[in-house]
Amino acid sequence: MSKSAAEVNQLKHAPAVERVMPEVLQRWSPRSFSDREVSTLDLRTIFEAVRWAASSFNEQPWRFLVGRRGDPTYKKIFESLGEFNQAWAGSAPVLILDATRTRFSRNESPNPVALYDLGAAAATLCYEATHIGLFTHQMAGYDRDVARKLFEIPEEFLLGAVIALGHQGEPSELTQEYMREQEISPRQRKPLSEFVLSSWGTPADLK
Amino acid sequence: MSKSAAEVNQLKHAPAVERVMPEVLQRWSPRSFSDREVSTLDLRTIFEAVRWAASSFNEQPWRFLVGRRGDPTYKKIFESLGEFNQAWAGSAPVLILDATRTRFSRNESPNPVALYDLGAAAATLCYEATHIGLFTHQMAGYDRDVARKLFEIPEEFLLGAVIALGHQGEPSELTQEYMREQEISPRQRKPLSEFVLSSWGTPADLK
Repeated sequence: MSKSAAEVNQLKHAPAVERVMPEVLQRWSPRSFSDREVSTLDLRTIFEAVRWAASSFNEQPWRFLVGRRGDPTYKKIFESLGEFNQAWAGSAPVLILDATRTRFSRNESPNPVALYDLGAAAATLCYEATHIGLFTHQMAGYDRDVARKLFEIPEEFLLGAVIALGHQGEPSELTQEYMREQEISPRQRKPLSEFVLSSWGTPADLK
Repeated sequence: MSKSAAEVNQLKHAPAVERVMPEVLQRWSPRSFSDREVSTLDLRTIFEAVRWAASSFNEQPWRFLVGRRGDPTYKKIFESLGEFNQAWAGSAPVLILDATRTRFSRNESPNPVALYDLGAAAATLCYEATHIGLFTHQMAGYDRDVARKLFEIPEEFLLGAVIALGHQGEPSELTQEYMREQEISPRQRKPLSEFVLSSWGTPADLK
């Protein structure tokens, strides 16, 4: 990562949280997006990052349907969203629907980590977006049957999430108070002891 | 990300691949790991990053069983690996098994993106490891029934992957020629046109 010796040394002695990648610490999911378009170069950059995500047997099972405001892809993705998400997601200049192939292409056997690898590819998308100054908000709240029909997605593909992508907007423009409040509250997470384990139910010793 | 104006400008005009995060470009999955241990601070850093991954309804459905060479967790994870992976993975100082809760804790309804969110958390783990100079190799090739039994993992959890974690080793120490060759071949990926779409089967226009 071509760091100077001083930087490496600094990283070595910093506490854990200060050693975490800025893209991970700064990523969050807004509901307010500005009018500003996402450039084609930005989109290409984000998917260039996705390309290099890891996958079982290098299957790269992921597919991304990318809609830009006003085009038919965008309209279909928006139409499949739940009412709650439609209330804000229309402000995003880009909506993306992701899906994954549940069988390996080399022998058509089931891929038990198809959805896992799709989630990894989508996370890569979100971190790269953060890296170039953009914001993402993933949604599981949409009608998978509607989306599948509108896009004629074959049965062997499993649908993942819808991702809103754009530049950050003004929280005050959100129509619902709940959303305006959420937009400015700090992110909350479980402590490590709840999910880093040495046996089931026992936290790993990370002291 | 506290970049200077010059850096921002440089990023703005670089071609797509040069704007991709170094952690994404430099991550790859070795099979040779060195003897060097992974420090507790490094482990804590990696899971501090995982903590901040995104998840549906902020469920954070992920769990990670972390084994360090010589401890019972490591032995159980290793025992569940397939023969092919046992041939190399024992050189990694850390083995991790991940799993995800398939129901939302707030109402016990099914979580359709539990495995997707686990994959995102695991990708976060791998990028953060790369960020601090470590290497990871995820494996889907292990016996899920054996792992579930050895760790008494409850039914409502779905098992994801095993992750080998450590410092890079010497490819020449790998016992199989196929593995030694793989270790030095360049990574291959599909072009964007195969997975970034405007409608099913039609590449999105990213020119």
